[in-house]
Amino acid sequence: MQNDIFLQACRRLHVHRTPVWIMRQAGRYLPEYRAIRSKVNFLTMCTTPELAAEVTLQPVDTLGVDAAIIFSDILVLPQAMGMKLIVEEGKGGPRFSEPLRTAADIQKLIVPDPCQKLGYVMDTIRLARKALNGRVPLIGFVGSPWTLANYMIEGRGTKDFLSIKTMMYSQPSILHALLDKIAQSAIQFCEAQIQAGAQAIQIFDTWGGILTPDDFKEFSLRYIEHIVRSIKKPDVPVIVFCKGAGFSLKDIAEIGTDVVGLDWTIDIGNARTIVEGKVALQGNLDPALLYAPPEKIREGVKIILAKYGKGEGHICNLGHGIHPDTPVEHVKAFVLAVKEESVPYHSY
Amino acid sequence: MQNDIFLQACRRLHVHRTPVWIMRQAGRYLPEYRAIRSKVNFLTMCTTPELAAEVTLQPVDTLGVDAAIIFSDILVLPQAMGMKLIVEEGKGGPRFSEPLRTAADIQKLIVPDPCQKLGYVMDTIRLARKALNGRVPLIGFVGSPWTLANYMIEGRGTKDFLSIKTMMYSQPSILHALLDKIAQSAIQFCEAQIQAGAQAIQIFDTWGGILTPDDFKEFSLRYIEHIVRSIKKPDVPVIVFCKGAGFSLKDIAEIGTDVVGLDWTIDIGNARTIVEGKVALQGNLDPALLYAPPEKIREGVKIILAKYGKGEGHICNLGHGIHPDTPVEHVKAFVLAVKEESVPYHSY
Repeated sequence: MQNDIFLQACRRLHVHRTPVWIMRQAGRYLPEYRAIRSKVNFLTMCTTPELAAEVTLQPVDTLGVDAAIIFSDILVLPQAMGMKLIVEEGKGGPRFSEPLRTAADIQKLIVPDPCQKLGYVMDTIRLARKALNGRVPLIGFVGSPWTLANYMIEGRGTKDFLSIKTMMYSQPSILHALLDKIAQSAIQFCEAQIQAGAQAIQIFDTWGGILTPDDFKEFSLRYIEHIVRSIKKPDVPVIVFCKGAGFSLKDIAEIGTDVVGLDWTIDIGNARTIVEGKVALQGNLDPALLYAPPEKIREGVKIILAKYGKGEGHICNLGHGIHPDTPVEHVKAFVLAVKEESVPYHSY
Repeated sequence: MQNDIFLQACRRLHVHRTPVWIMRQAGRYLPEYRAIRSKVNFLTMCTTPELAAEVTLQPVDTLGVDAAIIFSDILVLPQAMGMKLIVEEGKGGPRFSEPLRTAADIQKLIVPDPCQKLGYVMDTIRLARKALNGRVPLIGFVGSPWTLANYMIEGRGTKDFLSIKTMMYSQPSILHALLDKIAQSAIQFCEAQIQAGAQAIQIFDTWGGILTPDDFKEFSLRYIEHIVRSIKKPDVPVIVFCKGAGFSLKDIAEIGTDVVGLDWTIDIGNARTIVEGKVALQGNLDPALLYAPPEKIREGVKIILAKYGKGEGHICNLGHGIHPDTPVEHVKAFVLAVKEESVPYHSY
């Protein structure tokens, strides 16, 4: 491995500067991504290992980030479980045409053999590892059971999440049966990704933050913990990112994960105090700051580095996925600012 | 005043049970509201004092809540400042047809004389006070400068708030000029509402939670504080509700407000510890829980009452506005549960 500072930082070991990567870094803001995307649809990109591996490497080449993350979508797992995934151009993100409604719907879902149903993801990982040739580590990922259940029950992203919440409050045992099935599927999927060559796993809990703290623990965090403890291996760090769930940071730091991702609504200095050295922290620049001029972006980076302070265990990233129309020069300015400004925080 | 437990609780004085009202309680979930709404459009309802006063009283009659809140919309203030407000049936909420883009756009806005430009709101207050005849107190309200600025710059509610954030990060002084102008307008508007008979004022900061803690203080909380300290009178309590800003609860409790509203992502027991007796707390049942059967709603109420614990300074409410298609019987069950279950917490 030529550059393993990302993996070192995940383990809170000494690095010469803070590593940086960007959530959704293989994406539409990159012209070379749009060049490929203009020829094929989103799902074809996900399911064609050559294309997925190619876009996985683009931000490494263009931005010089310290980790690659496979190009895929969290919804490929529910699809492999038996849900019908649809992407219509210009009609918002992917959605499920037959959202789950009843216990019988959930009963019908399978716990898929990932090598059989999601082999294209593992092929992407193998191709990307080969193409990376040890330049930077490769991250695999999965959606959290709560977040995937949201899409599976609502059909698509919603504002109020009333269908899943009605099920949660009225028939919690049905929802638990679904969450358990997703967790089992996610564990096998993560293990297959690691087997294929993923060197870290990030669990995305995009919607944990819409719950009360008690419900977050019962319906989201316990399933994430089950995944983390099941897939944990000494040499493959796990990152847990629960957007909007800063209220439960102390709890998240105690489920055995190596790294906790932070959105931008948390002060990373306070967060470091709260997690008491149990985990590394990843984040947390507001993605909207990348629309500002480069000197403002650098200021934002300096503030986050100063808030985290001296010492190890920080991976710089945005607090959420990068917006599709972010100017690419600004993204480069962000990466460069982290590389340049972080050095003093690691010399002591 | 026949029932002033809401006002007493705002001041953390002794009450025999916990008062309860519901954000957006004069709304579409009520059949008697829909009966009026079917005949006139939303803005006509807001600007016709007889109709606005009538729907203001409906939840008092139907649900037996302990406070009325005038039927209006936070966007009438920007409209009075010179923005063009449009409501098209079936095309989402109200929006501004010419969103603010430049310093010149902001320069053109006026600080309106509320009695001249928003007289219908003050007329609504006078009519509602007369019709209430001392049954329960009447709450007036205003949007926070940050939240109003969001709508004024984005044009309507958005997912990512990129226009206002770009202005905030790139040209903060322009945004501050706007926020200052809105704050001045809001102060005069609140004072006119109090003059007309509003017995409490709630400041709604729906979008404070999309900011970093530092930016929340600079761009939202300082303007709310300016309003609170300007309008403060010993007999008119102020409630500040910043949705999603639980990360700044300690700061919010220190701006001179009497009551802090909580959304459901905060544990109200922890919140009570954090605010250290400086303010009363209002909230915080997840509005989605009102889709569950009445016995589950009662369970949810019991949990919140138990978390807050014995003693004064709690006003029960939802953690956000009620959803428009909530079953009205469930809303009644919520109000009744608070009235019945809260008694023991006030006898000691």
